[in-house]
Amino acid sequence: MHNKSIRIHSEEVTKAAVDALERRNVTIQDIAEIVFEMQKSYNDGLRMEHCIQSVERVLRKREVQHAILVGIELDELAEKNMLSEPLQSIVASDEGLFGVDELIALGAVFTYGSIAVTTFGHLDKQKIGVIERLDTRLGFVNTFLDDLVCSIAASAASRIAHGMRDLEEEGDTFADIPPDALGPQKKLKKEN
Amino acid sequence: MHNKSIRIHSEEVTKAAVDALERRNVTIQDIAEIVFEMQKSYNDGLRMEHCIQSVERVLRKREVQHAILVGIELDELAEKNMLSEPLQSIVASDEGLFGVDELIALGAVFTYGSIAVTTFGHLDKQKIGVIERLDTRLGFVNTFLDDLVCSIAASAASRIAHGMRDLEEEGDTFADIPPDALGPQKKLKKEN
Amino acid sequence: MHNKSIRIHSEEVTKAAVDALERRNVTIQDIAEIVFEMQKSYNDGLRMEHCIQSVERVLRKREVQHAILVGIELDELAEKNMLSEPLQSIVASDEGLFGVDELIALGAVFTYGSIAVTTFGHLDKQKIGVIERLDTRLGFVNTFLDDLVCSIAASAASRIAHGMRDLEEEGDTFADIPPDALGPQKKLKKEN
Amino acid sequence: MHNKSIRIHSEEVTKAAVDALERRNVTIQDIAEIVFEMQKSYNDGLRMEHCIQSVERVLRKREVQHAILVGIELDELAEKNMLSEPLQSIVASDEGLFGVDELIALGAVFTYGSIAVTTFGHLDKQKIGVIERLDTRLGFVNTFLDDLVCSIAASAASRIAHGMRDLEEEGDTFADIPPDALGPQKKLKKEN
Repeated sequence: MHNKSIRIHSEEVTKAAVDALERRNVTIQDIAEIVFEMQKSYNDGLRMEHCIQSVERVLRKREVQHAILVGIELDELAEKNMLSEPLQSIVASDEGLFGVDELIALGAVFTYGSIAVTTFGHLDKQKIGVIERLDTRLGFVNTFLDDLVCSIAASAASRIAHGMRDLEEEGDTFADIPPDALGPQKKLKKEN
Repeated sequence: MHNKSIRIHSEEVTKAAVDALERRNVTIQDIAEIVFEMQKSYNDGLRMEHCIQSVERVLRKREVQHAILVGIELDELAEKNMLSEPLQSIVASDEGLFGVDELIALGAVFTYGSIAVTTFGHLDKQKIGVIERLDTRLGFVNTFLDDLVCSIAASAASRIAHGMRDLEEEGDTFADIPPDALGPQKKLKKEN
Repeated sequence: MHNKSIRIHSEEVTKAAVDALERRNVTIQDIAEIVFEMQKSYNDGLRMEHCIQSVERVLRKREVQHAILVGIELDELAEKNMLSEPLQSIVASDEGLFGVDELIALGAVFTYGSIAVTTFGHLDKQKIGVIERLDTRLGFVNTFLDDLVCSIAASAASRIAHGMRDLEEEGDTFADIPPDALGPQKKLKKEN
Repeated sequence: MHNKSIRIHSEEVTKAAVDALERRNVTIQDIAEIVFEMQKSYNDGLRMEHCIQSVERVLRKREVQHAILVGIELDELAEKNMLSEPLQSIVASDEGLFGVDELIALGAVFTYGSIAVTTFGHLDKQKIGVIERLDTRLGFVNTFLDDLVCSIAASAASRIAHGMRDLEEEGDTFADIPPDALGPQKKLKKEN
């Protein structure tokens, strides 16, 4: 039963998700660098600004925000030794067959289609850029965070691949469009 | 290996997907009626026009279009007895444990988040509106089509549920916005 | 980076998952009743014992156990008001567009194929049996638990549907097999 | 509406799926080599025979068989130029944003859990072993086949990773178990 009386405003959720990433030392710039690295050779005229805008757009999506809030909460609770056993040990040790970390990240990436899913799997094994330093060791727990970063990067890369196709059909490249064309959308607009 | 030299324009794919639905006697109106039926009691001011626009928006999505093209192709090939055995018998009889029909439809619906997935599962069992007459019998094969219709309707309903939330946060209802605010988006815009 | 030195024995995880369900007042019998209700009309000779064994088999799966541990942990933390905001309010109010609850449950159900996914969606809306009383209100939080129960029931029902097919091919029904044929498997066996 | 009167025996479906792979020049040995390559460094005592048995077990799963039948049918129809446009061009050119090929393969791999999904994504980009020669060019269409091979290999590898964990808990390694312990299961057994 959903309780309609309590409502958390979406701006508050958006802010909380971005704050959580920053608190865990992951910036939008970090994630955009992964996206740029993956997409630059396929997309003429692609600039870091396009990648940053695409990451910002992904971070506006409710599914992505909720995944971030849940995943980082579990990492932080495990870091403070506040989960009950055996979940505490499973999360704190980034247990190889756990799977819920990948699952929560996959749900968000799935909203960008099956190609984003294969990109996610690739990133999850390759661990380029910021992902590599998100180790779970020496008292830090990033079991969920590394999968979340892969998810956001794979989603933003997928948006760029789709955008490139649209541009090609018009005879354009990314050099022809302003970065904010890839950025966050406007809200539903009222009549007049 | 992807062959970049051959490119099918996205307008052509969009048209082919809508044409395929019509050829199989499913209209946008039919699907919008399912959406309206599911959402009217939760969304003040919701009109059929909002539902039609939401269905049209879903039908602009590449994942959805590709799912439609593949699914209806397989239905039509089975109807002409042109698949090889045992696939021909499996599709022609809408075999209960087949699963690829649900899977192709699920891929499209997954791009609208996990809540759209549960709505899809519900529709797939309830078979309201046009879904009910999409029987596979008497020489007609609609094994994939009925799941595709559930998928499009669940996706369009999910868009409306998310849109309603945005409106509530502004103190509005669907009565305050023109239906085309839910409709197909504009393309990436060039720097002018 | 996965820490191979810390290992939680699978028996311990299995026990923790079943204990967590019991602590939240959900018994294997409760879930088996949902399975029986859904499957009895399609499967001649099906008895409650078959359904209980099928539920027990589902509960041996790592993906299912991990989903249970994470979901119930989040419900209980929310009940004690120990999550950080805005996640605390989202989980405590079973926010309609949250989605991570459905997602975690879907991951487990997906391991039983796409047909299990549609059954899950159906159960999630219909809320038969024990699912109905798992309300989130009056200080109780069952936001994740109700989806987990749907997931386990849908998975166990899917196993029975597949088992029925195998039996039909042999000219048998469930009346011909002992319930434990559907139950937990034996481990990998050593050479003699 | 599912037609219960027509039933294709599961042995027939199993045989058709394996035959289809062979007809497309992919052997169980080819797929097992990918699995061995991926898993040998993590699993002491692992032999090619274990990998072959694990692949054979994956190929007994209905979801996997149905995915193979549909995917290879579409490849072969495209090769004979028998699909309608624009689907014919999309499949024949292995269009980069198509996605239904990955989706059908993902459905099968999802039944082995979210970790198998990331392995699939990795293989899909790396293209090791037989996957590399499954090019779509010079009149051959392997648009679906290469994703199917990734799916089967990722699933078989996931089974081995899970099996290794079970062995470790007993203080054993793959050197201690006969390969057929990983192979196809026996059917439901009658009360005798």
